[in-house]
Amino acid sequence: MPTPIITLTTDFGKKDHFAAAVKGAIYSELENAMVVDVSHDVSPFNIQEAAYIIQNAYKSFPAGSIHIIGIDAELTPENRHIALKMDGHYFVCANNGIISMISSAFVAEKMVEINIHNTMQTSFTVLDVFVKVACHIARGGTLDVIGKPAGTIKELTTIQPAVSNDGSQIIGNVIYIDNYGNVVTNITKKLFEDIGKTRAFEISVRNHRFTKIYNNYSDFVNFDIPANERQVDGSGLIVFNSASFLEVAIYKSNPQTVGGASSLYALDYRDTITINFN
Amino acid sequence: MPTPIITLTTDFGKKDHFAAAVKGAIYSELENAMVVDVSHDVSPFNIQEAAYIIQNAYKSFPAGSIHIIGIDAELTPENRHIALKMDGHYFVCANNGIISMISSAFVAEKMVEINIHNTMQTSFTVLDVFVKVACHIARGGTLDVIGKPAGTIKELTTIQPAVSNDGSQIIGNVIYIDNYGNVVTNITKKLFEDIGKTRAFEISVRNHRFTKIYNNYSDFVNFDIPANERQVDGSGLIVFNSASFLEVAIYKSNPQTVGGASSLYALDYRDTITINFN
Amino acid sequence: MPTPIITLTTDFGKKDHFAAAVKGAIYSELENAMVVDVSHDVSPFNIQEAAYIIQNAYKSFPAGSIHIIGIDAELTPENRHIALKMDGHYFVCANNGIISMISSAFVAEKMVEINIHNTMQTSFTVLDVFVKVACHIARGGTLDVIGKPAGTIKELTTIQPAVSNDGSQIIGNVIYIDNYGNVVTNITKKLFEDIGKTRAFEISVRNHRFTKIYNNYSDFVNFDIPANERQVDGSGLIVFNSASFLEVAIYKSNPQTVGGASSLYALDYRDTITINFN
Repeated sequence: MPTPIITLTTDFGKKDHFAAAVKGAIYSELENAMVVDVSHDVSPFNIQEAAYIIQNAYKSFPAGSIHIIGIDAELTPENRHIALKMDGHYFVCANNGIISMISSAFVAEKMVEINIHNTMQTSFTVLDVFVKVACHIARGGTLDVIGKPAGTIKELTTIQPAVSNDGSQIIGNVIYIDNYGNVVTNITKKLFEDIGKTRAFEISVRNHRFTKIYNNYSDFVNFDIPANERQVDGSGLIVFNSASFLEVAIYKSNPQTVGGASSLYALDYRDTITINFN
Repeated sequence: MPTPIITLTTDFGKKDHFAAAVKGAIYSELENAMVVDVSHDVSPFNIQEAAYIIQNAYKSFPAGSIHIIGIDAELTPENRHIALKMDGHYFVCANNGIISMISSAFVAEKMVEINIHNTMQTSFTVLDVFVKVACHIARGGTLDVIGKPAGTIKELTTIQPAVSNDGSQIIGNVIYIDNYGNVVTNITKKLFEDIGKTRAFEISVRNHRFTKIYNNYSDFVNFDIPANERQVDGSGLIVFNSASFLEVAIYKSNPQTVGGASSLYALDYRDTITINFN
Repeated sequence: MPTPIITLTTDFGKKDHFAAAVKGAIYSELENAMVVDVSHDVSPFNIQEAAYIIQNAYKSFPAGSIHIIGIDAELTPENRHIALKMDGHYFVCANNGIISMISSAFVAEKMVEINIHNTMQTSFTVLDVFVKVACHIARGGTLDVIGKPAGTIKELTTIQPAVSNDGSQIIGNVIYIDNYGNVVTNITKKLFEDIGKTRAFEISVRNHRFTKIYNNYSDFVNFDIPANERQVDGSGLIVFNSASFLEVAIYKSNPQTVGGASSLYALDYRDTITINFN
């Protein structure tokens, strides 16, 4: 049996010693471990960002992979540590609401509140607790050994798109801004299709209007027009991104130079995008 | 036979889920794969930057390594996907000109236009197409199976140094600015020696003049002068860098504090540096 | 015997080809090598930052791990290359003072000045020299083969906390600012306890006063107060961090938005923090 993969999603950043210390601790316990960074650049304490990232990363990994989430993980009376199996994957994290944000659809097959550390004083939870739990699971250990099954997932009321009573309107919100400055909303392709059916629609982003949603960035381009006559770079467009969320994008944007959708439309976290159906 | 190494060069950044999702997909196909990040911090859509980075990284890897380049990779009628073997290494990328920038010297030993995805709709090419191709090659599969051999490499007219007709002058351009703020030009050591022979020369960088090129940054320092009497930190100098390109450097520069050659000489991409031979 | 781990701590940054080229060179020599990034984001030429990072990372790795430190590593008459064994770990670096900063407590069990490259001209030391040395050690080779045992560690007078003659005061300095903007001083928990014994104390940070040091960030929170009545986020506090240094922190700080301790208290490297004992 190969050693399962252990992934890391944290707000540690890449400069400090934290992420490396965690890897060293894993290799000290499990010399053949396969450790993969998902992201260490989550904004500090930003559970929603972390949820979006791990949600769209974990599914690519083999079933049985173990995902350590090191965000807002210090043990307190209100912030217990949990380990759970969900959708064929293991997650080790704080019970701070992130699991409810990763998936409202999935139910944990098994979940425990970690209790191996009730007497342990630590200010480096991920290193001192999560690594031990992850390596235990990686060696084939059961969840029962490291916790008690009583726990329930803390539900966080994440920001949800609002659908009008008559189904004529969806108001969504910005939940993530990616490396290209593209703006991801909480409107899924499924919600759009469930509400909109096949009706025509108009999407309002600030004072801009869009009436088409692309499935690829390049579908926006008309390749029948000669390349030197097209004016597409820097144009705004709406796509369903690869994670199936509605996204406001700028064609071939570069946030460091010309700007991305986030800066060009002045869209930040929680700002709204409105879809009106005819 | 060990599993070949698969490297990743992209403009995905390190915060988003993209790079991790790609790694997860590779490990799902090939559990013992060895995946190495070359860079995920290429400026968005900047083919020239990506070419400089992969060009100077790939040669250190063992022959047979597979290099995925995820820059400007969306499939369009004008941007086909290719896989090729060149200089003993495999490259999987879009036919967007990057191969011609990586090497004008090498000829692909074998090249195919990937056609396993003609019916596949995807907005995440690297995950959905390049991973499959790379894993196929890693398992020892041949290129013929995943594409048709008809393709030719798209040539991009990259910015080339200009040599005057009488051979008395080379005008080069900035092609890369590194982590230290050092400014890399497109003038190779070979070109310099071919044109200059053993003649004396003067290099003009803005209104500064240099008459010496060092082979190491520290060759600039006269160690016969007592350390406390030297004034070298922050001085400008010209070196042939470890990739054998002429580079304008600042001795022990720190772009975050005192500045690097890029900021101190106000040099940006495409700006010129002139060499006059006597 | 498993292949030892080789870690990398450099100021190369993550965009350029340097770190990847080094990894490729290691894999070319040792196909089953386990290479782990400690940090590539050390500020250029900042030995003190590098020392803090590797000091707090290496101990988590298994004994016998090999740590390459690529900071200020160019070979000069004054900057020789060394390889040593200390605290059960191997270090390959320049003799530029960093070893004395990593540990004043440990004595090298064995140390050599590397002499395999006396005739080698290179401007990429880490790639051309340190990789060879690290792989030699990883294969079980002895230090004697790659150097002469004459070397002594260069001592750097690092910034040390000042203790008043009567033991009533410690003046410490900022030595590191972490990803959360938290400010790490050179006052260790051990020094604090040795000098302060059980006396009451007052810590001065700019014009703020603190009379308590926490062992966890969350110990600062009174969980008896209902969550919606607490005002803790953004509050300043003093902790002994996970590396046992006295640290000025902001509870759940985010340097990118509200600011961290560094920006809010205007504390930069070398700035002072004062502890007065009663």
